[in-house]
Amino acid sequence: MIIVLKPQASESEVQQVLDRIESLGLTPNLTRGAERVVIGAIGDERKLAEGAFESMTGVEQVLPILKPYKLVSREFKSTDTVIDIAGVPLGGKTVQIISGPCSVESQEQMDLSAKAVHEAGCRLMRGGAFKPRTSPYAFQGLGDIGLDYFKNAASKYNLPVVTELMDVRKIDLFLEKGVDVIQIGTRNMQNFDLLKEVGRLDVPVILKRGMSATIKDWLMAAEYIAAQGNQRIIFAERGIRTFETQYRNVLDVTAIPVLKKETHLPVIIDPSHAGGKAWLVPALSRAAVAVGADGLLIETHPCPSEAWCDADQALNPQQLKDLMQDLAGIAHILGRDL
Amino acid sequence: MIIVLKPQASESEVQQVLDRIESLGLTPNLTRGAERVVIGAIGDERKLAEGAFESMTGVEQVLPILKPYKLVSREFKSTDTVIDIAGVPLGGKTVQIISGPCSVESQEQMDLSAKAVHEAGCRLMRGGAFKPRTSPYAFQGLGDIGLDYFKNAASKYNLPVVTELMDVRKIDLFLEKGVDVIQIGTRNMQNFDLLKEVGRLDVPVILKRGMSATIKDWLMAAEYIAAQGNQRIIFAERGIRTFETQYRNVLDVTAIPVLKKETHLPVIIDPSHAGGKAWLVPALSRAAVAVGADGLLIETHPCPSEAWCDADQALNPQQLKDLMQDLAGIAHILGRDL
Amino acid sequence: MIIVLKPQASESEVQQVLDRIESLGLTPNLTRGAERVVIGAIGDERKLAEGAFESMTGVEQVLPILKPYKLVSREFKSTDTVIDIAGVPLGGKTVQIISGPCSVESQEQMDLSAKAVHEAGCRLMRGGAFKPRTSPYAFQGLGDIGLDYFKNAASKYNLPVVTELMDVRKIDLFLEKGVDVIQIGTRNMQNFDLLKEVGRLDVPVILKRGMSATIKDWLMAAEYIAAQGNQRIIFAERGIRTFETQYRNVLDVTAIPVLKKETHLPVIIDPSHAGGKAWLVPALSRAAVAVGADGLLIETHPCPSEAWCDADQALNPQQLKDLMQDLAGIAHILGRDL
Amino acid sequence: MIIVLKPQASESEVQQVLDRIESLGLTPNLTRGAERVVIGAIGDERKLAEGAFESMTGVEQVLPILKPYKLVSREFKSTDTVIDIAGVPLGGKTVQIISGPCSVESQEQMDLSAKAVHEAGCRLMRGGAFKPRTSPYAFQGLGDIGLDYFKNAASKYNLPVVTELMDVRKIDLFLEKGVDVIQIGTRNMQNFDLLKEVGRLDVPVILKRGMSATIKDWLMAAEYIAAQGNQRIIFAERGIRTFETQYRNVLDVTAIPVLKKETHLPVIIDPSHAGGKAWLVPALSRAAVAVGADGLLIETHPCPSEAWCDADQALNPQQLKDLMQDLAGIAHILGRDL
Repeated sequence: MIIVLKPQASESEVQQVLDRIESLGLTPNLTRGAERVVIGAIGDERKLAEGAFESMTGVEQVLPILKPYKLVSREFKSTDTVIDIAGVPLGGKTVQIISGPCSVESQEQMDLSAKAVHEAGCRLMRGGAFKPRTSPYAFQGLGDIGLDYFKNAASKYNLPVVTELMDVRKIDLFLEKGVDVIQIGTRNMQNFDLLKEVGRLDVPVILKRGMSATIKDWLMAAEYIAAQGNQRIIFAERGIRTFETQYRNVLDVTAIPVLKKETHLPVIIDPSHAGGKAWLVPALSRAAVAVGADGLLIETHPCPSEAWCDADQALNPQQLKDLMQDLAGIAHILGRDL
Repeated sequence: MIIVLKPQASESEVQQVLDRIESLGLTPNLTRGAERVVIGAIGDERKLAEGAFESMTGVEQVLPILKPYKLVSREFKSTDTVIDIAGVPLGGKTVQIISGPCSVESQEQMDLSAKAVHEAGCRLMRGGAFKPRTSPYAFQGLGDIGLDYFKNAASKYNLPVVTELMDVRKIDLFLEKGVDVIQIGTRNMQNFDLLKEVGRLDVPVILKRGMSATIKDWLMAAEYIAAQGNQRIIFAERGIRTFETQYRNVLDVTAIPVLKKETHLPVIIDPSHAGGKAWLVPALSRAAVAVGADGLLIETHPCPSEAWCDADQALNPQQLKDLMQDLAGIAHILGRDL
Repeated sequence: MIIVLKPQASESEVQQVLDRIESLGLTPNLTRGAERVVIGAIGDERKLAEGAFESMTGVEQVLPILKPYKLVSREFKSTDTVIDIAGVPLGGKTVQIISGPCSVESQEQMDLSAKAVHEAGCRLMRGGAFKPRTSPYAFQGLGDIGLDYFKNAASKYNLPVVTELMDVRKIDLFLEKGVDVIQIGTRNMQNFDLLKEVGRLDVPVILKRGMSATIKDWLMAAEYIAAQGNQRIIFAERGIRTFETQYRNVLDVTAIPVLKKETHLPVIIDPSHAGGKAWLVPALSRAAVAVGADGLLIETHPCPSEAWCDADQALNPQQLKDLMQDLAGIAHILGRDL
Repeated sequence: MIIVLKPQASESEVQQVLDRIESLGLTPNLTRGAERVVIGAIGDERKLAEGAFESMTGVEQVLPILKPYKLVSREFKSTDTVIDIAGVPLGGKTVQIISGPCSVESQEQMDLSAKAVHEAGCRLMRGGAFKPRTSPYAFQGLGDIGLDYFKNAASKYNLPVVTELMDVRKIDLFLEKGVDVIQIGTRNMQNFDLLKEVGRLDVPVILKRGMSATIKDWLMAAEYIAAQGNQRIIFAERGIRTFETQYRNVLDVTAIPVLKKETHLPVIIDPSHAGGKAWLVPALSRAAVAVGADGLLIETHPCPSEAWCDADQALNPQQLKDLMQDLAGIAHILGRDL
C-alpha cells in the first residue's frame, strides 16, 4: 500500500501515518519526492479495514498494491482450471456450447429442446425453472415441477443441466433434483448470503456478471464462493449496462482476455442476454469464440415465437445447428475444438 | 401499445399483427402513415409477455404506452403517502434525518451514537448488524448481538431503528428484535425473493436504488413489495455508478423530482454512501434537502477515525449538529420542517 | 409521431394537440384507449422542432416513429456501399486492415512502418501528424512535416494514407498533401463545423464514434457529412466509456451488426484504442472480424517501446504479421477475404 | 510515480526499470515488499510520455502520484479566483444567475428576454447565435445577425453577454461584436484547437463539461486554455450521460465540491440542459445553489411554447422571478448573496 501525503502535510501528520502503519503490523517506508512525501506500507494490506488511512489528516490518497482477491487469482494458481461437469470438461481445449430455452414451459417443450441441443452437438443444457423477472406480474417460472421436466428431458441425451438459483431456501431442492451446475444470475452477483451458501456445496457454479459490476467486483464475488471451499466457479459475461439503449446490453468482449489474465477459472459468454435479440446472436457468438471464451450460453427454443418469455431472443433448432458450424471453424483457428 | 411496421412489411405481415392483437384480447387500430404502417393495440398491455410482437417478421419496433408499475404509481394514488414509523411520520411536511454509524461495533459505541443522533435532533436511527461487504475477508457485521446493542441504545431515546436485511432467513429475527424499518440494500434491489418476503410483512421498507438501476427498474422492484400487500415503501437514492471514479458514486438528485412525479411514496437520499467521503456529506445533504427529498440517511460515528468500516465517511457528533442547522434553514425555504 | 396524453387530460387539451398537429402540416389520428388518449401525427415528423408537443399541458410523452437520419440509412439505400480509396475497396467482400504507428515521428520510422504494413499484407496505412492529446504538455504531433514523411513512406508501397484532421484550417493542407482518407476523431465526432467542412470534400471520411455517443448520435453525425454531399463515410467503433476502468474503453462489438442493419455504409473497428494495450489487440481483432467488421485500424510501430505516444499499445511488425494469419482464417469462415 | 513489478519479475527486469527511470532524469527508489517489488520514480513525472513504463516486461502497474494539471490547480493558487465580467464578479460571495433563451430568434424576442432577465435580478445574460444541433436538418442558429440582436437587447440593461463559440473562424467576429464571455459547449470540450485559440484571448471562457468527461479530463481541457495564457476560466457542469434515459442527463452535483477542492476557478451549473425539462429546473437550481455552485445558467424565454428550440425546457419570466426568491434564501444560508 502506498500512502501519498498532501503537499502541505506537517511532520507530525507524517509521523502519525508512520505510527499507524506500525500499529497495524506493517512496515513503513518513507520517500521524500519533489512535491510529495510518499510512504509505503510493507506487508499484507488485505487485512486492513477500508478507509484506515484515508481518514487521516495529511493523507491525500491511498494506492493499493496488492489485489484484493486471492483464491481465484492467477497468482494463486497459474494453470487454467478445467471444471468437470458430470464428465463434460469446461475450461480446457474444448469450447462448450450450453444451450436450451429461457424458461421451462412443459415436458414436451423440454423434450424437443433437449433433442435440438443434442443434435446441434452441444454437451450441456440450460433452462430456467425459477425466473428473475423485472415485473412481479410476469411469468415467474414453473418452479419445482420445472426442474423435473428439465432433468427428464436432459437425461435422455446425457446432458448435464444448468439452472438458476435465486433463493437460499431452494438449495436442498436443487441438490435433490440433481442440478449439475448452479447459475447465479446478474441480479444476485452480490447477494453475499447466496454466494456463501453455494460456496459450501460441491456443485459447479456459473457466476454471471452484475449489470454494472467491474472486473474487480466480479472477482471478489467469486472469492466469496471460493473462500467457503467451492472453487468450481465459471465466470459468465452477459453484457453490461451503459448509456446505449438501442440494444439490451453491451457485450464486453474485452473482459474475456482480461479475466483470463487475472484468474485461473473458466470464462464463458451469454450472447443471448447480451444482445437481447435472436438476430444478433450469431454475430455475437462468433465474436465470443474468437475472443477466447471457454464456452457460450445460447438460448434456443423449439418454436421461438411461442416462447413464454423473451420470444424475440431464442434461436430455433436449425439456426443453432448452422451457428455451431461457424463456431467450430473459429475455434479451430484458435487451436480449440467445439 | 403501438406497433410500428417495417417500411417493406407485406399486407400478410400486417394481417398477422392484427390477428395476434385480437387473439391476445386487445383491440387493434391501424393507421397508414406517410412512411410506415402503425398499429395500436387497445387494452391492458401489461398482461402481455415481453417480446410478443417484437419477434414477428414485419415488426420494426414496439412502443409501450402504459407504465408497467401500478400500485406504487401516482395514477393509483394521487396524494403523497406519509409512512408512520413507530410514531415518526416520513413523507410529509417534516424532512426526517436518519443517522447513526455504518456498523454496530459495541454497546458503548451504540450508546454514544444514539445520544449524538438524539442530541442533533434526529428522530430515527440507522446502523448495520449485517453488512454487505465487497470482500469476503472484511468485517461482515456483528450479526444477531448487534441488533440487541442497537435496540438497547436507540430505545433510550425513543429512536425507531433502521437496519439492513440481506437474507430471507433472518426475517423472524428482525421481527422478534423489533426492527422498525427494514432496509433493502443496493446489491439486493432485484433480489426478488427477498422483496416478496418483505412484501408480506407489516414493517416499513427502505428500498435502496441499485447501482445501475433505472427509475423504471426501481419502481418495478417496489411494485414487487407492494404486490404482496406491503405498501409502506420508502425509496432511497444513494448514488449511481457512472464513468466517473474520482468519487464513489454520482448522487442523482434529478431522481427525486422525477420519482415524486411517478410515485406517491416517500423518497430519501443517502449522501454518505453516494459521496463516500465525510467532507462531501454537508454539501450533498444540503442539495438533497433543496431538491425536495423527504429524508436523509447520514452516517455518524462517535469517533469516525476509529470506525470498523468506512472510516473516512462518517460525520462526528458536532459535524452532524452543525449540518442540521443548515438543513433546517433550507427545509424552511421549501415550506418544510426538519 | 405518437402523442400520448395524460390520463387526466381534458377535452380542450386534446383539442389543442389536434390543432397544433394540423397547424404544423401533419394529419392527426385520435384513438381512445382503455387508460389513455393516443394521437398519431401522420406526415414527415423530421421537420418538426424538438419539444413542439412535449411542452403542451395534457401531453404525457411523445414517441417518434421515423428515424431522424436519412441519407445514411438502409432505407435510403438498401445495398452495401463500397468505398473506393485510391483503388482499394472498403466495405465489400475484403476485410481491410489499416495499420501504422500512432504518431509520425521521423522519415525513418515511417519508412520502416510502411514496409512492415506492406509486408504484413495490409493495403492501407494510418499515422497521426496532428494528435489530440489529453494533456497540453504532451507531444502534439509533428504537424505539416509529418504529413510529408507519411506520404513519402506510404507511396513507396502504394499505400493510401489515413490521418486525423482536427482543425478546419488544415483542410487545404490535407488536400494539397494528398491525404487519401480523413479521420475525424472521437473528441470531434460532434464538432459540427468540422463535419460540415469535410462534407463538402471529395475525400472518404472515417468517423470515429464519440466516447459516449449512442448509435443514433453517431448516425446523425454522419448525416451532417452526407447532407453536404460527401457520402463516402466509414464508421469506426473504438470503444465506449463505461463504469469499467480496468481497460481504457469497452469495445462495443454489438454496434457492428446493429449499424450494418441501420446504414449502408462500411463499419470498421479500432481494437488498439479500444483496449489500450498491445496484448489485448489480437483477441479484440479476432472478435472484430468475427462480428462482421469491414476493416480494422491496428497500431503498429517498428519498435513499440520507443514510440513517442501510447508505447504500450502498438504491435511490432512480427506480431502484426502473425495476427493477419488468424484474421484471414476468420474472414474466410464468414465468406470474406483479407 | 510508483512502478509495481509483477510477482515473477526477474532481477534483470527490475534493473531495466531502474535504468530507464535514471535515463529519463528521475531518481529511482526501490522497496521489496512481501509480495511485490515497488519502485518509486522521484521527480516531475508530468514530463514523461504515457506508457513509458507500462510497456516494459516485468511491470505490473504504474501509479501516478502527481496530478497532471498545474495552472488550474489549487496547489498552484490556493485562493478562490474571482473573474470580472465587465464589472460583474463571478466566483466570489455572490452567486450569479445567468439567464436568457436557448437561441436568438429575433430582436423583439431578445428585447423581451433581456427585460425579463433584468427584472428577475440577474446580472448576466445568455443566448445562442450558433447552435450545436444533433440533427443537420434542425435550426442551426441565426448566426452573425443573432449576435447583433443579442448585444442590442442586453446592452439596454447593462447585461454582459455569454454565447457559444463552435468554430475558430468566428473568433474575430465574436471579438468585434463584443461578446463578454465565450462558452465552449459540451461537444467541443476536447476540441483542442478551439481551446488553444480561446486560450490566447483576453475574454473569460465558460467551459462546459463533456457528456462523459471525468473531472480529470475536464481539468486537463481547462489546462489547455490556461497554458496559452488565459486563466479566466469558468467550469460549467451540465449533466453527464449515464444509463438512465428517463431524463436527458444526470446532474452531477458532487462535481461541485470536488472541483472546488481541486481548482481555484469558479464552477457553475446549467440545470436547464441537465434535466431537459422546465418543470425540473426549480428543484435542480435549488440543489445547485445548495451544493455550492458559484452561478447558474438558466434558460428563459418570453413564451417558452413558441421557442424555436428546446420548447419544453425554458422558464417563463414569472417562473424565473419566483425561482430567484428561493435561490436567494438558500444562498443566504451558505453565507452568500444572489
